[in-house]
Amino acid sequence: MIIVKIGGGKEINIAGIISDLAGIDEQYVIVHGANALRDKLAEDLGQPKQVLTSVKGYSSVYSDEKLIDVMMMSYAGLRNKRIVELCQRHGINAVGFTGLDGKMVRGKRNKGIRVYQGKKLKIVRDFSGKPQSVNSPLLHLLLDNGYVPVLTVPIIDEHNTAINTENDDVVRVLQKALKADTVLNLIEAAGFLENKDDPASLIKSIPVSELEARERQVEGRMKRKMLALKKLFEQGAGRIIISDGRTDHPVIGALAGKGTVIA
Amino acid sequence: MIIVKIGGGKEINIAGIISDLAGIDEQYVIVHGANALRDKLAEDLGQPKQVLTSVKGYSSVYSDEKLIDVMMMSYAGLRNKRIVELCQRHGINAVGFTGLDGKMVRGKRNKGIRVYQGKKLKIVRDFSGKPQSVNSPLLHLLLDNGYVPVLTVPIIDEHNTAINTENDDVVRVLQKALKADTVLNLIEAAGFLENKDDPASLIKSIPVSELEARERQVEGRMKRKMLALKKLFEQGAGRIIISDGRTDHPVIGALAGKGTVIA
Repeated sequence: MIIVKIGGGKEINIAGIISDLAGIDEQYVIVHGANALRDKLAEDLGQPKQVLTSVKGYSSVYSDEKLIDVMMMSYAGLRNKRIVELCQRHGINAVGFTGLDGKMVRGKRNKGIRVYQGKKLKIVRDFSGKPQSVNSPLLHLLLDNGYVPVLTVPIIDEHNTAINTENDDVVRVLQKALKADTVLNLIEAAGFLENKDDPASLIKSIPVSELEARERQVEGRMKRKMLALKKLFEQGAGRIIISDGRTDHPVIGALAGKGTVIA
Repeated sequence: MIIVKIGGGKEINIAGIISDLAGIDEQYVIVHGANALRDKLAEDLGQPKQVLTSVKGYSSVYSDEKLIDVMMMSYAGLRNKRIVELCQRHGINAVGFTGLDGKMVRGKRNKGIRVYQGKKLKIVRDFSGKPQSVNSPLLHLLLDNGYVPVLTVPIIDEHNTAINTENDDVVRVLQKALKADTVLNLIEAAGFLENKDDPASLIKSIPVSELEARERQVEGRMKRKMLALKKLFEQGAGRIIISDGRTDHPVIGALAGKGTVIA
């Protein structure tokens, strides 16, 4: 079982990814982002995104009700349905899901994020949280009947409200439920870079034991991502491949070991 | 089996409809529109909708690729996911679907619509068509496992492309597949009105035999709707109730016979 995570950057070659997947024999589930699309739509609608940075240095998008609306339009609407359409064109019988549908991904809403406003400490509560579990019976019902689930945010919280979460965390609960051996993370870079501004600084492999040190090395959103990766191994993933989603054949490339292999 | 069609007008009391449905014992499937939302979003994005009127007098929205994008955002994204969320809050385990997902609703793309441009006859081809069939096994897989499908456009054509269609036509193929006895059509009016500008002119019942005469009486989009109703009876529906979706209890009202009952 493979989990294919498609990044939400605007340069990701989604058509190439889906075309590659059509040639794969192993079972897989798709998780996708749409952050570039969301940001553009929010801009076009005159409500540009706001980013919160917690006192611990983790940053996240401020997810008020309007932002959730925009996410439903961009992630669950346009991006999810165009991916499902592409899959169908390639003979993959895809079914799009958010975490709300059939309570596919259940989570817990954040109590509040501690942020500094100037020098003042403030607790900001929005519609965001952490996924806790997936609806495994529904997932298997689909997989066993030949359907490929295509998952995205929002997810559903303990009060049945739509909340935003990191797709990396969705991958984590999904990997655990499906006992997926391989996670492909297709992003807008050649892989994990020693120096994020230098594409030539690609790190070809990272032993799991080094992940904690790497986490301390990076900042902002990347910090969250490294933390999520570490957790994946703690719960039994075999290998994670962070690879370039912009090439002609992102999945074939990743499975051939292009990018950063963490194992 | 009941098919509940929720109109896409902006005054429809969706919360009231879902709250009513939570108290219903019979099995049902939801089909919803989002035309007011779509039109507003298209306006906000600077691409206002264009309407085509065929030489036969049927009117429809000109569905180019950008309009399909907007429909994915409004119908499949925001409206569908907020309805699913509302359902979950009321204990209804809803799963949102477009016709693309699992090829739930398959159709045939229109070859072109004959329209007059000035006095010139022209054939315009867009991404629109007619639904032909639904994926009954998938529908039953969900229903048998306690899930409530929440369906909307777009649907999938013979070349696996997303196309727009009338939700009334989706209701038609769905009714046939599920052998649904009752169709509730919750709209922004008290029911079928003799004079569309006079709410007091409600027609409380229409015998099926009169539908053809009624179709000749109306214009534009309503013409399509009457045609769709007629077909429902030809394929075995027991009763159709066109009722007010703006009241506090639209479903309870409709099932009690408020509005126009066609039987």
